Amino acid sequence: MSLKNTLQSPYSQWMEDDAPESDVVISSRARLARSLAGYPFPHRLSPEQAEQVIQAVSLAVRNAEFRTRFGDVELVRMTELSPVDRWILVEKHLISPGFLKNTGSSFEYKGLVLTPDEQLSIMVNEEDHLRIQCLFPGLQLEAAARTADEADSLLEKTLDFAFSDRIGYLTACPTNVGTGLRASVMVHLPGLVLLGQVKEVLTTVSRLGLTVRGLFGEGTDAVGNLFQVSNQVTLGHRESEITGNLASVTRQVIEQERSARQQLVRQMPVVMRDRVGRALGILKHAHTLGVEEAMRLISDVRLGVMAGLLKGPPSRVLLELMVITRPSYLVRVSGRELSPPEWDELRATLVRELVNAHSGEHPGAQDGRDTGRRPEEKKKI
Amino acid sequence: MSLKNTLQSPYSQWMEDDAPESDVVISSRARLARSLAGYPFPHRLSPEQAEQVIQAVSLAVRNAEFRTRFGDVELVRMTELSPVDRWILVEKHLISPGFLKNTGSSFEYKGLVLTPDEQLSIMVNEEDHLRIQCLFPGLQLEAAARTADEADSLLEKTLDFAFSDRIGYLTACPTNVGTGLRASVMVHLPGLVLLGQVKEVLTTVSRLGLTVRGLFGEGTDAVGNLFQVSNQVTLGHRESEITGNLASVTRQVIEQERSARQQLVRQMPVVMRDRVGRALGILKHAHTLGVEEAMRLISDVRLGVMAGLLKGPPSRVLLELMVITRPSYLVRVSGRELSPPEWDELRATLVRELVNAHSGEHPGAQDGRDTGRRPEEKKKI
Repeated sequence: MSLKNTLQSPYSQWMEDDAPESDVVISSRARLARSLAGYPFPHRLSPEQAEQVIQAVSLAVRNAEFRTRFGDVELVRMTELSPVDRWILVEKHLISPGFLKNTGSSFEYKGLVLTPDEQLSIMVNEEDHLRIQCLFPGLQLEAAARTADEADSLLEKTLDFAFSDRIGYLTACPTNVGTGLRASVMVHLPGLVLLGQVKEVLTTVSRLGLTVRGLFGEGTDAVGNLFQVSNQVTLGHRESEITGNLASVTRQVIEQERSARQQLVRQMPVVMRDRVGRALGILKHAHTLGVEEAMRLISDVRLGVMAGLLKGPPSRVLLELMVITRPSYLVRVSGRELSPPEWDELRATLVRELVNAHSGEHPGAQDGRDTGRRPEEKKKI
Repeated sequence: MSLKNTLQSPYSQWMEDDAPESDVVISSRARLARSLAGYPFPHRLSPEQAEQVIQAVSLAVRNAEFRTRFGDVELVRMTELSPVDRWILVEKHLISPGFLKNTGSSFEYKGLVLTPDEQLSIMVNEEDHLRIQCLFPGLQLEAAARTADEADSLLEKTLDFAFSDRIGYLTACPTNVGTGLRASVMVHLPGLVLLGQVKEVLTTVSRLGLTVRGLFGEGTDAVGNLFQVSNQVTLGHRESEITGNLASVTRQVIEQERSARQQLVRQMPVVMRDRVGRALGILKHAHTLGVEEAMRLISDVRLGVMAGLLKGPPSRVLLELMVITRPSYLVRVSGRELSPPEWDELRATLVRELVNAHSGEHPGAQDGRDTGRRPEEKKKI
């Protein structure tokens, strides 16, 4: 999948639903912060230096060994992408929201390397010169960290990373010094939210040295009952400790969420069936949908499918829906800026088509209107 | 269709949806009040006299001419029916709620004659000795009145009705004296309700000498945006005046409702599509449904189908649904008394099955449960 495909499809490989523990864990991410020796950190780079960093990484990913492992990748400058396309990358969790804002160097010197399978992305001149990120479906922290390490090693054949024998890799922010590794998982906790236990569980998680954030990272809300859990400290810990600790805490959260779902199904089967059924019914038939309502309904349907209450669309389609409902994807589909009511209408149309295409019900069959497009066609672009 | 079939199926012929003006008018009813000469009115009958009335009517409907016209009908005593079955007849609008309560003679002497097509029903010893009622789909007041007249004439070959040359037929309540005719239509006015104009329209209707009531007659609410409009006065008017006046006012109400629907669709197409679509989605997927919510949703879907916003179940299925959602039908299906949560669950199950059977979507396909019964099978009993 080329970058163009990445931008046109709401689907990403990290949405696959046959991954380990994917009933609760949506995705696992490992991110390494790396700095080039001899250069100031991005926010202090001169334009010439920033350009040199871009060139150095661009060259490094064209290295034969790197290409053998990760495919024919190219560095794309963010200025080559439209504002909408940049936000789509954020909404697909392939770059950080901060990358489009004020972190790191000025915008002209920010670049992105993305592998065709979207598993590996490298942000250049974000807060650090390089942010090497691997994103895997389900609970696969070790695989993600291992892949990030591979990329790191292959890049190091060309690039000279700033490293101190005493404290490890040097990074712009002290919290990343050491391994430079931030590991995180995105978990779906509708059961704990419904039982009113999520705050308690996540407070415990925080006490274990982990950070809990909303869907799009720091300072964002946990829409759709999705939470990101990540390690806080990198200094003084080995990589395997970091991923191992996070994986171990995540396994506890998984058990608590599963137990919450079982309790809900056991104690109030009709209420639960009703809740998730209505959510599916509305997604299939609404003609105007706000983003928050859409995320709530998608979360309910995912809970229903995972808890065996509902034969709805598979999880990967539901995760695609979560991308589809975001503003940038809607703007891309429509090809122009939209008013809020238009957004809500287009969102409902796209959601209806995709859900009906995956529910054995013809999208045009129930409503007096058909856009003439098949969601399946869009996906195959 | 025998009385047994009538009691087992939620469908009645008056629900047919290819009838005149059936987008707004559900059904037309003509009811004649008749008293047997030489007997006190039902509330003053002795047991012996009440039994004589029953016998007289029972004999009259076995008259050969009557049978040639109306089929092989028999008088059924209300004591032969279970309480649930009696209420199902009310919910199908084939007998009045008052017939099961305190009007007319004591319960043992109340009888019912119902033709196989359910078009003609005769209540014996309701408020009057005979209430001859004809129920037709759509706006067919003249046809209903004509059929009631035919029944009246054929019965009069055997029975001696109390009649005064000066004031006409004598009845227990002075409001029925004269022709004894009460003509009524059941109209579905969701457009006027949504626009907030229904009160104004119905106030005007009242000023024209007509009465507006809820779904089950006097003192009941207009659930499902259904209203009954009928003539108030019978004395001093010819039958044709009564039906003509009601038909003429009804035509005005039809135009106002159609105009309201057009206005809603024109001015807020997305909101309307969304409203009716969500209603259909919930009916297809809910697992617990209160009677009021069910009626509201059915009304919304009917509006959507009639206004061309939705390809949903046909109107006759929606009218069946309105019967299905009533408590007595649910008790009949379940075969026992139910708790309120059980009612709501069974109601949702029956609604889901019938709606999905008429939406090209397999009822079991979307939900993790299937009762194993096909609504189509139930209908063909």
